[in-house]
Amino acid sequence: MDFKELLMSRYATKKFDGTKIDDGKIEDLFEMIRFAPSALNLQPWKVKVVTDQDTKKKLSTASMEQAQIKSCSHLLVFCADTDLSGNADKITNLMKKVDVPDEKLKQVQEVMKIFLSNYDSETGIYEAQCNVFIAAITAIYAAKSLGIDSCPMQGFSAEAYSEILEIPSGIVPTILVPLGYPADKPMPKLRFPKEDIFF
Amino acid sequence: MDFKELLMSRYATKKFDGTKIDDGKIEDLFEMIRFAPSALNLQPWKVKVVTDQDTKKKLSTASMEQAQIKSCSHLLVFCADTDLSGNADKITNLMKKVDVPDEKLKQVQEVMKIFLSNYDSETGIYEAQCNVFIAAITAIYAAKSLGIDSCPMQGFSAEAYSEILEIPSGIVPTILVPLGYPADKPMPKLRFPKEDIFF
Repeated sequence: MDFKELLMSRYATKKFDGTKIDDGKIEDLFEMIRFAPSALNLQPWKVKVVTDQDTKKKLSTASMEQAQIKSCSHLLVFCADTDLSGNADKITNLMKKVDVPDEKLKQVQEVMKIFLSNYDSETGIYEAQCNVFIAAITAIYAAKSLGIDSCPMQGFSAEAYSEILEIPSGIVPTILVPLGYPADKPMPKLRFPKEDIFF
Repeated sequence: MDFKELLMSRYATKKFDGTKIDDGKIEDLFEMIRFAPSALNLQPWKVKVVTDQDTKKKLSTASMEQAQIKSCSHLLVFCADTDLSGNADKITNLMKKVDVPDEKLKQVQEVMKIFLSNYDSETGIYEAQCNVFIAAITAIYAAKSLGIDSCPMQGFSAEAYSEILEIPSGIVPTILVPLGYPADKPMPKLRFPKEDIFF
């Protein structure tokens, strides 16, 4: 399936049929998510994977009882990892391990320093969250390429999710991607006209 | 090209060769960007298209002289449209035009009301900006599917961009996507291991 076909056939699935997704497909999907791009390659995200039905029931209550939560096969809870400088250190160490030349490394570190200086503990979370949207939308396209449907979802209590899933502080639930096979049909896509967007 | 191939061959192009992208391809790309998903389909984005070399020179100064700005064919400045409730009205009107049933319309309006109540003028911009990241990353994948390289970029002064491009207030430059044909080579992709991400 080429990207245009994938983009046009993807839709926000409102209800899944409960069929479990094959483990092999899930592995392929996770591998693609791992390669999503991010600002300065900081990859400021963690993904909590929920398959247990009892946990999904608890989460459903914290998600305005939206039907996707209980009916999906896998619920991916995309979280922001707000420790941007910790991730900067991690990626720097990875670069050292693969013998990135010193000059290049210094250059990257200099850019990271300028970039990180733009954020404090309050604004850093927004930058991390915007990057999380990249990973989540990559997951949605990657899932569709494997024949899996999904739905990007907000409308949940991040605090309740953190409590139910025992997510440590600093890791902030940001956007949900339930995965599965649909029990609904797509609606026609409505979009603003080109002249409303491009200027 | 399937999505995995597209994802793995995409890279943050550091310098373009200056070749102009064919108008037909740009039209195809814009059409795909238009169909990017967004929270509640609010599409809170505008995209300023820059091709003029003199303007690019001015923008380069406001972008830490990163080489992509002057060497690209088209520079897409993805902006957040912070008027979330205005966009909610627009999409509601569009739904009325295509005769979405009254019951469905009421349901959507109710969800929109709850959603919008989560944001004030300060936090609404972050929600809009996270959605802009969806459109920008969709543009990057769509471009690659058309054989066009790109680079998601921050590291620019939004204020200077607004001034140079005469962007109205309420429309906030958020992320840049320069497009073109590369004059560099991709570096190997470095990513955190799976066990660092999924939990």
